[in-house]
Amino acid sequence: MRRIVALSGGIGGARFLRGLRRAAPEADITVIGNTGDDIHLFGLKVCPDLDTVMYTLGGGIHEEQGWGRAGETFAVKEELAAYGVGPEWFGLGDRDFATHIVRTQMLAAGYPLSAVTEALCRRWEPGVRLLPMTDDRVETHVLTDDGDGGRKAIHFQEYWVRLRAEVPAHAIVPVGAEQAKPAPGVLEAIGAADVVLFPPSNPVVSIGTILAVPGMREAIADAGVPVVGLSPVIGGAPVRGMADKVLAAVGVEPTAAAVARHYGSGLLDGWLVDTVDADAVGAVEEDGIRCRAVPLLMTDLDATTEMARAALALAGEVVNP
Amino acid sequence: MRRIVALSGGIGGARFLRGLRRAAPEADITVIGNTGDDIHLFGLKVCPDLDTVMYTLGGGIHEEQGWGRAGETFAVKEELAAYGVGPEWFGLGDRDFATHIVRTQMLAAGYPLSAVTEALCRRWEPGVRLLPMTDDRVETHVLTDDGDGGRKAIHFQEYWVRLRAEVPAHAIVPVGAEQAKPAPGVLEAIGAADVVLFPPSNPVVSIGTILAVPGMREAIADAGVPVVGLSPVIGGAPVRGMADKVLAAVGVEPTAAAVARHYGSGLLDGWLVDTVDADAVGAVEEDGIRCRAVPLLMTDLDATTEMARAALALAGEVVNP
Repeated sequence: MRRIVALSGGIGGARFLRGLRRAAPEADITVIGNTGDDIHLFGLKVCPDLDTVMYTLGGGIHEEQGWGRAGETFAVKEELAAYGVGPEWFGLGDRDFATHIVRTQMLAAGYPLSAVTEALCRRWEPGVRLLPMTDDRVETHVLTDDGDGGRKAIHFQEYWVRLRAEVPAHAIVPVGAEQAKPAPGVLEAIGAADVVLFPPSNPVVSIGTILAVPGMREAIADAGVPVVGLSPVIGGAPVRGMADKVLAAVGVEPTAAAVARHYGSGLLDGWLVDTVDADAVGAVEEDGIRCRAVPLLMTDLDATTEMARAALALAGEVVNP
Repeated sequence: MRRIVALSGGIGGARFLRGLRRAAPEADITVIGNTGDDIHLFGLKVCPDLDTVMYTLGGGIHEEQGWGRAGETFAVKEELAAYGVGPEWFGLGDRDFATHIVRTQMLAAGYPLSAVTEALCRRWEPGVRLLPMTDDRVETHVLTDDGDGGRKAIHFQEYWVRLRAEVPAHAIVPVGAEQAKPAPGVLEAIGAADVVLFPPSNPVVSIGTILAVPGMREAIADAGVPVVGLSPVIGGAPVRGMADKVLAAVGVEPTAAAVARHYGSGLLDGWLVDTVDADAVGAVEEDGIRCRAVPLLMTDLDATTEMARAALALAGEVVNP
């Protein structure tokens, strides 16, 4: 399995990738990052998921928090607040600001996001090839109540960060996805892959958004290589964040088996569930997806590396059953 | 002298204005700020002179340095350098960055610089009305040697900050000035003024650039009110910076009398020189400009306040000789 493609959201995906890199040190890993969470703040282009992957694999991440920079300070944000300029609910630190300033300057100069991401990664040397899912603008919106009997769409970050997913989510809409094209290199990487992995990222707003880019799902399904995912749901609840809220919005139960069924056997060949969900293995396999139960808590790098090894082993089983 | 208009560059002008505000607490002071030093850095619009006035009068200035913010940190700049993104020779701190981010965002949203400056001043409450000389782009360039026998134009900031004025300056060119219009409110303020002051700012690249905006010089000359300046040259050398270098570029000797003659009696009614230049008073008066010798070192706020009082007193003398 020399050529690995992994789809990734933010924190969960990034941590998994760190284990994957250790589990397969000789592999050529291409990461297709979600950009549906991207947001313009203070006139700057912020790509939370790409940055989380870049900082995590590049050794610059705030470890406990899982996002943002280690040793971060907040002078710029405090000053912006003093000018009455918000939003204050999005935590941009000074070091992080520099990334967005460089990115915005390059985009304004005409470089596509994929070229900008490559340039930023030249500093961080993440040890993987990080590609945005698309160079086009896709923005995940959440359909919620407008407080007046009707509904309104808000930016995913407003729903997730400001409102902490505590308002009803009736639908998740990746605005612009239908018109988006996969970024340069994305379809080529999938076509040349020996295995495609779905880390335990959010199946709706992370992996789901990547799969919403036209051509992406088909390229993965048609690649003729094992596609293996890891459940982000353990024991009936998401490991991190509030994934159950957005699963409900798309009518999926927060169980490891239901998430596998949501991806579907047309896409997924193998699925890892946590040992506490071992009784789900039978149901998943009945759906035509090979399934194993292994520990899925990314408590440390060793545990995460074992998860990656198990995913690659399951991919091997799919090829040579 | 209820309505005062003052033209201003950066450090020297800003410090004088602090004294002026104290000398005339009841006055309605309009400051016309130089924008020829403005520069785009990291995709952001930086207005050094406007900010120095705003920070100085608003209590946010780095007192010893004379520019930039007090209690400044440099995380953003360090990070930009880590990305290999410069220039490194321009000292933008984290707090300062916030100002440029807000400004750039407002400009991108379509607000003219005058409206942006007003918005920024809502926070700083400088106690004066701060207007940019123009909302149009004017950029002071310095014609220097190209090292190959020819000449080349460089941005004033590159000449001043990076090269510390240590290369030959053959000409100072306010690029774009000919097409610029005074910002809204500028001509009205001059027309309604009881006195116009030229603080001890650089006569070439600060006051000179403001006067290069078409209509500005005429409005001041035609206002029919006293125009009084303070010499930035004391004892044959500029008090601050490297003003002698740019004076030489326009063929003006670095003396208090020569600077007065450079402005000319068509514009200037009164001129303050330092006590060490008392022997220049006669020559200046022979040029038709009323002249007094008073201490002109802005050693502290009291000394600066006395300078402002002397300027206003000289304006009174011009009106009632």
